[in-house]
Amino acid sequence: MSQNTVVRFVKRPDGFVDESSFAIERGPIPEPAAGEVLLHNFLHSLDPYMRPRMTEMDSYVAPFEVGQIMEGGGLGVVVESRHPDYKPGDVLQGMLQWAEYQTANPARFMRKLEPDGQAWKDYLGVMGFASLTAYVGLTLIGDPKPGETLFVSAASGAVGSIAAQIGKIKGCRVVGSAGTDEKVAWLRDELGVDAAFNYRTVTSMDGALSEHCPGGVDIDFENVGGETLQAALDHIRPHGRIIMCGAISEYNVKGAGLARIFRIVSHKVRMQGFIVSEHLDMMPAFTAAMRSWLKEGQIKYRETVIEGIDNMPRALVGLFRGENFGKLLVKVGAEPAS
Amino acid sequence: MSQNTVVRFVKRPDGFVDESSFAIERGPIPEPAAGEVLLHNFLHSLDPYMRPRMTEMDSYVAPFEVGQIMEGGGLGVVVESRHPDYKPGDVLQGMLQWAEYQTANPARFMRKLEPDGQAWKDYLGVMGFASLTAYVGLTLIGDPKPGETLFVSAASGAVGSIAAQIGKIKGCRVVGSAGTDEKVAWLRDELGVDAAFNYRTVTSMDGALSEHCPGGVDIDFENVGGETLQAALDHIRPHGRIIMCGAISEYNVKGAGLARIFRIVSHKVRMQGFIVSEHLDMMPAFTAAMRSWLKEGQIKYRETVIEGIDNMPRALVGLFRGENFGKLLVKVGAEPAS
Repeated sequence: MSQNTVVRFVKRPDGFVDESSFAIERGPIPEPAAGEVLLHNFLHSLDPYMRPRMTEMDSYVAPFEVGQIMEGGGLGVVVESRHPDYKPGDVLQGMLQWAEYQTANPARFMRKLEPDGQAWKDYLGVMGFASLTAYVGLTLIGDPKPGETLFVSAASGAVGSIAAQIGKIKGCRVVGSAGTDEKVAWLRDELGVDAAFNYRTVTSMDGALSEHCPGGVDIDFENVGGETLQAALDHIRPHGRIIMCGAISEYNVKGAGLARIFRIVSHKVRMQGFIVSEHLDMMPAFTAAMRSWLKEGQIKYRETVIEGIDNMPRALVGLFRGENFGKLLVKVGAEPAS
Repeated sequence: MSQNTVVRFVKRPDGFVDESSFAIERGPIPEPAAGEVLLHNFLHSLDPYMRPRMTEMDSYVAPFEVGQIMEGGGLGVVVESRHPDYKPGDVLQGMLQWAEYQTANPARFMRKLEPDGQAWKDYLGVMGFASLTAYVGLTLIGDPKPGETLFVSAASGAVGSIAAQIGKIKGCRVVGSAGTDEKVAWLRDELGVDAAFNYRTVTSMDGALSEHCPGGVDIDFENVGGETLQAALDHIRPHGRIIMCGAISEYNVKGAGLARIFRIVSHKVRMQGFIVSEHLDMMPAFTAAMRSWLKEGQIKYRETVIEGIDNMPRALVGLFRGENFGKLLVKVGAEPAS
C-alpha cells in the first residue's frame, strides 16, 4: 500500500499498437490537495476508441499526450477525502488514470454511484457507455423496424452484442460477424441472432453478406470500417441506414478507400456518425429499458476481466487485435461492496 | 412534318460517353392508338442522372435498354388526340422520348401545364426538377443555419446554382466550385456567393478548401464525388451534413475510394443520399417559395439552349464533360404560346 503503480503513454504507435507504447512506473502514492480526494481505481474499462486517441488523428476526443498517464473510463473508491461532499468508501465513475491510486477533484467530472445491488462491473459493462452507445446509435440513426435486416459487425463486442440484441427485441432479422468460431457460436446459440459468420474464415465479406443477407441490409451497425463497411454499402437496401459507430480496422492500418459511393445517392442511404457523450440525456431512458430487458432475460452479455494494472497494456493491445470476448475490464486490487 | 426523327441508345459506354452510344433515325410519324395522343416534343432537359442510366449501374432508375429510344424530362404539345381529356394545343410535362413526335397515353405519367405567363422552359429550368432537387436536399438533409458555411460543387450547374442561392437566402456563407473562370466569375459577380474557385486550375481541392473555407465546411452539397467529396469530408466540421445529390465524377471513371471515413464518426457527420422523385410532395412549397424568390430577384439562373434533335447526343456528351453553363435544354421545332 505504500507504493503506487501507473501506466504512462510513452510512444505513438505507427500502425499496429504494441506494448512499447506504454511504460509501467512505480512511485509514491500521491497526497490529495484541499478539495481533492485520493482514489483507489479498482475497475477499468478498455475500449476501441482508445486507439485513435493514441495517434494524432482528428478524433472526437483529444489525443493522449506522449508522457501522460493513460486514462479511460473506470470506477474508483475514495480512500481519503479533503472534499466536503465525498467520504471514504464512496464509489465514483469517470475518466480515471491507469493508476492504482490517483488524486482528483471529483466534482468536476465524476458521478457518485450508490450501491443498489447491481455489480460494480455492470456500470462499466452492460449498463455502461458501450451499451448506451448501441442504444443511442440504433435509436437516433438506425430506427429499426420489424422485419428489417440489421447487420452488426464486431457483433460479439461490448457495443455490437448489445446492438444485435436490441435489434432482435425490435423485431429485426439480425446478422452478426465476429472473429472466432467460438464468438460466432455464442452469437447464434446464446444471443439468438438469425445468422452469424467468422469474418476471418469466409472467402469474402461480399460473399458472406450475399449468403446471410440475401435480401440486402436495411441497417448496418458499423464498428469495423474497411472491407466490412464496403460490403455493407454494396449490400445496402434502398433507404438503408449505416450507423457509423467505429472503424476499428482503420485505426491501425490504412486500407483502400470506400468505393461505389454513388450507392449512397442511388439507394438514398443515410450514413451517420455519432458520439455517445453528446447524448447523455438518453441515459435515463436507456437505463430503464436495460434494467427491464435484463430482468426479462432479453439481454445477455459477456465480459473478459483481466487482473492487475501491469496487464493493462497487453490487454489493450489484445483488444485491438480482437483477442478478447465481450466487454474488456481490468480489476485492480480489492473492490468495495456493491 | 411527314417524317419523324428519334435518337436511339445503341451502345453502353465504357468510361467516358461519346456520340457512338447514340443513333439518329428518321422514320414515319407514329399514329396514336385509341386512348393516346400524338405529341410534338418541343423542349427537352438533359441532366447528369442520365449517365448512370447508360450503364447497368445500380442506379435509382432502371438503366436504358440498348436499342430503346432515349428518354428524359421534357415538354410536348398535343398535335392529335384520341384521349377524351386532352386536346390539340395542350402542353404536357413528363418523361418523353428523344423524338420529334411520339405517341403516348398521357394519363399515366404526364401532367398538363396551364399557360400562366411563365416561359415553358422555366418548367424544365428554374421551376423544374433540378431546382426542386436543390431545395429538397437542402431542406431535408442540409438544414442550413445562418452563419454556417455551405460548400457547393458544380455550383454553376442547374442544381448547384440554385443550392448556392438558397444557401445565401438562408444566411449561409456560400463557397462554390466550377470548371471555368467564366463560371467562377458568374458565381461571384452575379450569384453573389462569398467565394468561388475553378477546380481545374487550383493546385488541389484540399488547398482550395483550406483557402476558401478556413473554418471548415458545415454543409457540403455534393454533386461531383471523387476528389471533391474527399476534400469536403476532410474539411467537414463537427455535425456537418453531406448532401449526396450526385457523383458525376464517378459516372465516367473509377477513382480512388473515399478515405478517412473515420471522420464521419469523429465529426458526427450525416452523409445522406436522396432522390427528388420521392419528395414530390414538396413541389407546392418549393414552387411557392421559388415564385416569391424570383419576384424579389433573389434567384438568378442561366440556361444553355441547344437547337435541334440531331444535336442532343453531342449536347449530352458535353454536359458530362462540363461544357455547358447552367441548365441544359434542347429546343426541337416551334413551341406553343405560353
